[in-house]
Amino acid sequence: MTTSTATTKAAQARAKKSAPPQEGEVTTGPIYRSRKVYHEVTHTNTDGSTTTMRIPARAIELTTGEDFEVYDTSGIYTESDPTLDLKVGLPKLRDEWEKPAAAPASEEHPEIKVQTQLAWARAGIVTPEMTYIAHREGFDPEFVRREVASGRAVITANHNHPEIEPMIIGRNFAVKINANMGNSAVTSSIAEEVEKMVWATRWGADTIMDLSTGNDIHETREWILRNSPVPVGTVPIYQALEKVNGDPAELTWEIYRDTVIEQCEQGVDYMTIHAGVLLRYVPLAAERVTGIVSRGGSIMAAWCLKEHRESFLYTQFEELCDILAKYDVTFSLGDGLRPGSIADANDEAQLSELKTLGELTRIARSRGAQVMIEGPGHIPMHKIPVNVEWEEDWCDGAPFYTLGPLATDIAPGYDHITSAIGAAIIGQAGTAMLCYVTPKEHLGLPNRDDVKVGVITYKIAAHAADLGKGHPKAQERDDALSKARFEFRWHDQFALALDPDTALDYHDETLPAEPAKTAHFCSMCGPKFCSMKISQDVREYARENGLTSVEAIEAGMAEKSREFSEAGDRLYLPITQTN
Amino acid sequence: MTTSTATTKAAQARAKKSAPPQEGEVTTGPIYRSRKVYHEVTHTNTDGSTTTMRIPARAIELTTGEDFEVYDTSGIYTESDPTLDLKVGLPKLRDEWEKPAAAPASEEHPEIKVQTQLAWARAGIVTPEMTYIAHREGFDPEFVRREVASGRAVITANHNHPEIEPMIIGRNFAVKINANMGNSAVTSSIAEEVEKMVWATRWGADTIMDLSTGNDIHETREWILRNSPVPVGTVPIYQALEKVNGDPAELTWEIYRDTVIEQCEQGVDYMTIHAGVLLRYVPLAAERVTGIVSRGGSIMAAWCLKEHRESFLYTQFEELCDILAKYDVTFSLGDGLRPGSIADANDEAQLSELKTLGELTRIARSRGAQVMIEGPGHIPMHKIPVNVEWEEDWCDGAPFYTLGPLATDIAPGYDHITSAIGAAIIGQAGTAMLCYVTPKEHLGLPNRDDVKVGVITYKIAAHAADLGKGHPKAQERDDALSKARFEFRWHDQFALALDPDTALDYHDETLPAEPAKTAHFCSMCGPKFCSMKISQDVREYARENGLTSVEAIEAGMAEKSREFSEAGDRLYLPITQTN
Repeated sequence: MTTSTATTKAAQARAKKSAPPQEGEVTTGPIYRSRKVYHEVTHTNTDGSTTTMRIPARAIELTTGEDFEVYDTSGIYTESDPTLDLKVGLPKLRDEWEKPAAAPASEEHPEIKVQTQLAWARAGIVTPEMTYIAHREGFDPEFVRREVASGRAVITANHNHPEIEPMIIGRNFAVKINANMGNSAVTSSIAEEVEKMVWATRWGADTIMDLSTGNDIHETREWILRNSPVPVGTVPIYQALEKVNGDPAELTWEIYRDTVIEQCEQGVDYMTIHAGVLLRYVPLAAERVTGIVSRGGSIMAAWCLKEHRESFLYTQFEELCDILAKYDVTFSLGDGLRPGSIADANDEAQLSELKTLGELTRIARSRGAQVMIEGPGHIPMHKIPVNVEWEEDWCDGAPFYTLGPLATDIAPGYDHITSAIGAAIIGQAGTAMLCYVTPKEHLGLPNRDDVKVGVITYKIAAHAADLGKGHPKAQERDDALSKARFEFRWHDQFALALDPDTALDYHDETLPAEPAKTAHFCSMCGPKFCSMKISQDVREYARENGLTSVEAIEAGMAEKSREFSEAGDRLYLPITQTN
Repeated sequence: MTTSTATTKAAQARAKKSAPPQEGEVTTGPIYRSRKVYHEVTHTNTDGSTTTMRIPARAIELTTGEDFEVYDTSGIYTESDPTLDLKVGLPKLRDEWEKPAAAPASEEHPEIKVQTQLAWARAGIVTPEMTYIAHREGFDPEFVRREVASGRAVITANHNHPEIEPMIIGRNFAVKINANMGNSAVTSSIAEEVEKMVWATRWGADTIMDLSTGNDIHETREWILRNSPVPVGTVPIYQALEKVNGDPAELTWEIYRDTVIEQCEQGVDYMTIHAGVLLRYVPLAAERVTGIVSRGGSIMAAWCLKEHRESFLYTQFEELCDILAKYDVTFSLGDGLRPGSIADANDEAQLSELKTLGELTRIARSRGAQVMIEGPGHIPMHKIPVNVEWEEDWCDGAPFYTLGPLATDIAPGYDHITSAIGAAIIGQAGTAMLCYVTPKEHLGLPNRDDVKVGVITYKIAAHAADLGKGHPKAQERDDALSKARFEFRWHDQFALALDPDTALDYHDETLPAEPAKTAHFCSMCGPKFCSMKISQDVREYARENGLTSVEAIEAGMAEKSREFSEAGDRLYLPITQTN
């Protein structure tokens, strides 16, 4: 069952491109020629009662009269007339859902009882989140449960973040993408900070990470959490370091722990924790071409050297597990020693840390906490796929979450592209989530356009990987767009594109008039040379004359060739006759 | 031996970004912080005499006082003060070189004597072009000869195009890229047409293809040929079709042959010829999602259906071989039936044609002509590498020259990126040359910025492939740039980038002042959080204290940790102290 928010006025709004928001507001309204739809799905609770959930999707309205539905991360912001109050935040939809009783953390620790998706999955419980995800991605709910139970997939959903639309990260699901954001130096308004999240999710970010620094970390995060329809990740060490005025020597377990609890309470869904930076690994990184490039990793390395002992992230790891499991916050075990250059790829520092992350994965899971593993970085193409093999082998199949990787170091200004190459390859090999890279990587802070380019580029990499993995539904959108292209349905081609606004702009630069959008040719070749047009005529002629098999051709219908010749002028209609 | 054109004034010019040319001129002058250098190399002719050749390179001037040299396709245009006369064209440097006597075409046809790089290589002759290429790419001249003799590499150098700086296309050399260009609808000047070529080669295009249509094809091509330092390719069927007013029914062998001879005489270095579109393959393409997307392919398919016989390209192929061999023009056997969508990838139409191209390769080589094979198109990642296997197997290892391929259809406006993913993968698998795709693909005609983005994107794909193939010198540039990055040599990082101007612009958007270009941090994290800075301090501290091995660390130098703690404030210099 589909409920639509479409109205005539809304349909007009949908035909428009995304405009920047007014001051004090965020970007709202449908994407070009689309409308928000919700599918109602019934979930059966553990007590036999039922809950009705509304699963969002974006329906692209084709000129054929059909809808083409796509996965939609943008929340209510892309409804045609959403009711928003940024200070209150989004409706807390998960508060209405069942939260099953605590279940045993694991076979090793049956005495620990937790309320996490992992523990529930292991106990055979299909949660509302699993039902939601199953319908959202087109899988069976029981399949979702098994993937979570095995640890091959995680559902990043803090109990204290009821606003999110649940999603799943795992190698057997669609590849997801993350967009990073930080606060502005001078924060002018709640809308300005929330807009970054709204803009990134509008174009397809599946999660966002808030990497804010400075004085307003807590407040900025609160704004983002309350208004985000997607899971939010953080790196708690950044805030902990702010609390000690930026001096890692002053960092303590207590300060860090309290920061983690503060963020858990607020509703952060996953946290990057660099617990695998061991003291003995630091010298392995010292002589690298680019040393340690992870901020969290370098902070912990400095702390370890100073203290000359293992970091509190490692020594207090079990306590950390119990804190995160209490809220069902997912570990994103950070790769503090990831390579920052082609020269350092797959070196001993990187691999040593990955093995340690494997040990930590087993500890966390035994205590009922969900885990994903962060990965590189900068890796040349031929060294990429083995990274996934190692990660799956050493970390018991935990979802891999990689930053690119960049396939070369030589193109600052284009690192969304150098990394999209690596991201597509590592995604095809099994990486579950790709952290985006913008054109400003290594050079500066991304602006609004850079964020969009980064997101779209990573949607491309993720989708190419889905195709390459044979994800059952992935090719449907390619086929729909290519069919529209061949049939000269220009508006449908734009609407089915990952970025309709840019496709439309580029087309209109050369052929702006509306008739050109129904023309049976385009500006590249013009009407005389259009291969698609010729090809359609060939198909039509072949069908009419039974020349649709090699056999028919070889039978040699010479008379047919004369007819085709006589009809030949049909191939090259002058431009004025084609609209 | 290196001769430099550097002067103080020139050095100042080199520090500047590329400015658009004045009307009637083309873009000249060095790329940011670079100067043109020439290496003098002595070639020994067949009679024992010698010829001195000047091999161009771009020397990037680092702030360390060292030069870093890179392969340079830009001709004299990037000298600091080149003498140009676009009407006369470039110096005809190859006219001074030896052109050895005709050699037997092959073992099958020893009676045919030709002057082609293939025949000479088979006869054991190292030509001046081979010596030139060997020095340009860092190989032994004898290795170059063997690769050409085997047909695994081609040297696209028409005897009538003496202006070019010879280059090689083959799987065991650096992956090359091609940029397509066409004439403007209203051609205003010679400079405007030549500028497109100058601009594309400035950023790294190894060859260009002139795909002009309309009335001024011959004149436009003449301007480009006389001024191009790189090989020029064409698709002669376009001009032949213009001669019959766009009606393929009127095409004849004679018209086509005369067009080919006209272009050979002018100096075209390689020609796309769609001789593999056989009549019986046409129905294989009729029911595809996107039919026939190659212009040349669709023209020949229409002709075959109309005539109900094989095309003159196929039936007259031997005569075509003898024409091309006379000038040493290289065949680029076109894939008229390449897939135009993910749905059509690796289908029977595509593969049938590829097998026929293999037959034609053997015929051409037996008559002494050089051959490369064009490839797709649109292919999902998991179906890409097998394309190279088939091509090398069926076409006896002839160099593969692919258009992308695009790894998904769903991102018009970003097809430089969808195709860079495919191009990097197919390049790593052995493709010798990649035809660029610009952001305007499928939507409109590329402008100056689009051409640059397309070229840089394909330089990235080609370089990623070189790294992935283990090309001996490829990683040197990555290492040089990463080292500059780690050492906060910002100007060197920009200068070593594929596009210094854009890297500089992006950096300056956030931190424009000159001191920021020597600062030991950047705008992404600021001075407090800079991982590179912390990492350098860790390295320095570890070195000073002998903590450079796991053993030393584990020996537990507790006193060292106290010292590091005392020196700890060195990690976080306030912003004012770092310049």
